Amino acid sequence: MEEDRKARASAWFEELRGQICAVFEAIEDELTPAMAAKLPIAAALEGLAPGRFERKAWAREDGDPAKGGGGTMAVMRGRVFEKVGVNVSAVWGEFPPDFAQKMPGAAQDPRFWASGVSLVAHMRSPLIPAVHMNTRHIVTAKSWFGGGADLTPMVPFKADTRDFHAALKAACDKHDPDYHARFKKWCDEYFYLPHRAEARGVGGIFYDNLETDWDADFAFTQDVGRAFLEVYPKIVRRHLAETWTPEQRARQLVKRGRYVEFNLLYDRGTLFGLKTGGNVEAILMSLPPAVAWP
Amino acid sequence: MEEDRKARASAWFEELRGQICAVFEAIEDELTPAMAAKLPIAAALEGLAPGRFERKAWAREDGDPAKGGGGTMAVMRGRVFEKVGVNVSAVWGEFPPDFAQKMPGAAQDPRFWASGVSLVAHMRSPLIPAVHMNTRHIVTAKSWFGGGADLTPMVPFKADTRDFHAALKAACDKHDPDYHARFKKWCDEYFYLPHRAEARGVGGIFYDNLETDWDADFAFTQDVGRAFLEVYPKIVRRHLAETWTPEQRARQLVKRGRYVEFNLLYDRGTLFGLKTGGNVEAILMSLPPAVAWP
Repeated sequence: MEEDRKARASAWFEELRGQICAVFEAIEDELTPAMAAKLPIAAALEGLAPGRFERKAWAREDGDPAKGGGGTMAVMRGRVFEKVGVNVSAVWGEFPPDFAQKMPGAAQDPRFWASGVSLVAHMRSPLIPAVHMNTRHIVTAKSWFGGGADLTPMVPFKADTRDFHAALKAACDKHDPDYHARFKKWCDEYFYLPHRAEARGVGGIFYDNLETDWDADFAFTQDVGRAFLEVYPKIVRRHLAETWTPEQRARQLVKRGRYVEFNLLYDRGTLFGLKTGGNVEAILMSLPPAVAWP
Repeated sequence: MEEDRKARASAWFEELRGQICAVFEAIEDELTPAMAAKLPIAAALEGLAPGRFERKAWAREDGDPAKGGGGTMAVMRGRVFEKVGVNVSAVWGEFPPDFAQKMPGAAQDPRFWASGVSLVAHMRSPLIPAVHMNTRHIVTAKSWFGGGADLTPMVPFKADTRDFHAALKAACDKHDPDYHARFKKWCDEYFYLPHRAEARGVGGIFYDNLETDWDADFAFTQDVGRAFLEVYPKIVRRHLAETWTPEQRARQLVKRGRYVEFNLLYDRGTLFGLKTGGNVEAILMSLPPAVAWP
């Protein structure tokens, strides 16, 4: 049964990846030449075809049973999406000793299996929020789900923040009336830069170690993915034809610097991956294409 | 006598800061309109006056005896120097408990005094290396000097690397025949990105906990500063009139990303400063003005 569960979770992460990539590519096609001509980057967009994801498979070390599995990176550098990465992976092996002590269910037996999908999108328009979404399933002696999604507007629009939170709240409420308040608070606490006393963005939800009933937790995790898939494209499309000022673009590049600071100073997944020989290209795909610390 | 030493060290760091700022401003004046007109950024430089340092004093928390002192940031955004920060500080108080255990001479008595000068320069031309220089004097129950300088070429030129190492070697050799080999190796080991298996640049020297004879160590630290002051302006002037390609600029922005990764993931001073309530603006002045993770 456990093998069946692993297979179902992995298959879902790949299916969600496929759906997300398809919608994002559709949005690339929706930016017509007439719309593009009115943007401040019209000249740069001219001659640039609508973006398409490039997929690249990677494997962990051959022949080392402590480092099995691999994943697929998909990255698109488009006309709307300046850089968006969507990664899926399914890896297994043994946690390094110090890490095993910190992971639920791994203190006695360091073996683990983990699969997930993660996404970070950086947009050309400073009017369109950057976004992060990740869901994962991890199996040790325990078995749990984790993940979430959070929005980082460069120029905040109330409707975007409202719709994003509403979509995640609806997904949470379907499963447990306490989930949204708990997971929203967790998100606010997690995506915070203490050295700046600043939030990374406007939040969303963050959850981890969710182990109530496998089917219920899996269904919730799927609903988080579906909520993201429904709401983020709506937010992107809302601003597709809107033009922006050089000042807004400059503010976007500075705000992206905060994103870099968070990911390299605090993000547990990034630090763990980099310090334990993860796939550097996949891990750092989250970093923005252009950034400024003026 | 200890107070006299502190005063002499602080005065030197400020004097060196003054000399460096003066030379860098002189270089800004040396980029003539005729030279600027041949550069790929001629249009952006037009109407931009030669850069001048802006100084800004800062103080640690008022009234908290554990957090005394302060410093002065000097930053110049110029025509040659895209962004260069030169900071001096003299601070005193008590190390936080966990940090005190790690600092020489502070396990019994957490009080410390520290003064130093630190500099990071990011250049508009990708043909001119970025550079970092820092020297400091720290007093606990022990009393030592530390610092160094290292070069990060974007497009490597053998003559630059050779001259930089030669200048630091001459400064070292004046004081101890073993210093250069030891401190060059230390620099190579320190400025290294394990997750990329890449060096941050071409190195230089790095030394810490130097406590042989106070006068000798202070004289050595001064000579490191003087060597920097002599060799780096020479390297900058060498490339002042040389033009570059868009590909070289693109490579520079990517290489700067590695600089950011190093500083936020590994640099002890940066991490310590950010996590113990240091002056964020001064600490992060090292981050490049424009960066790309394409």
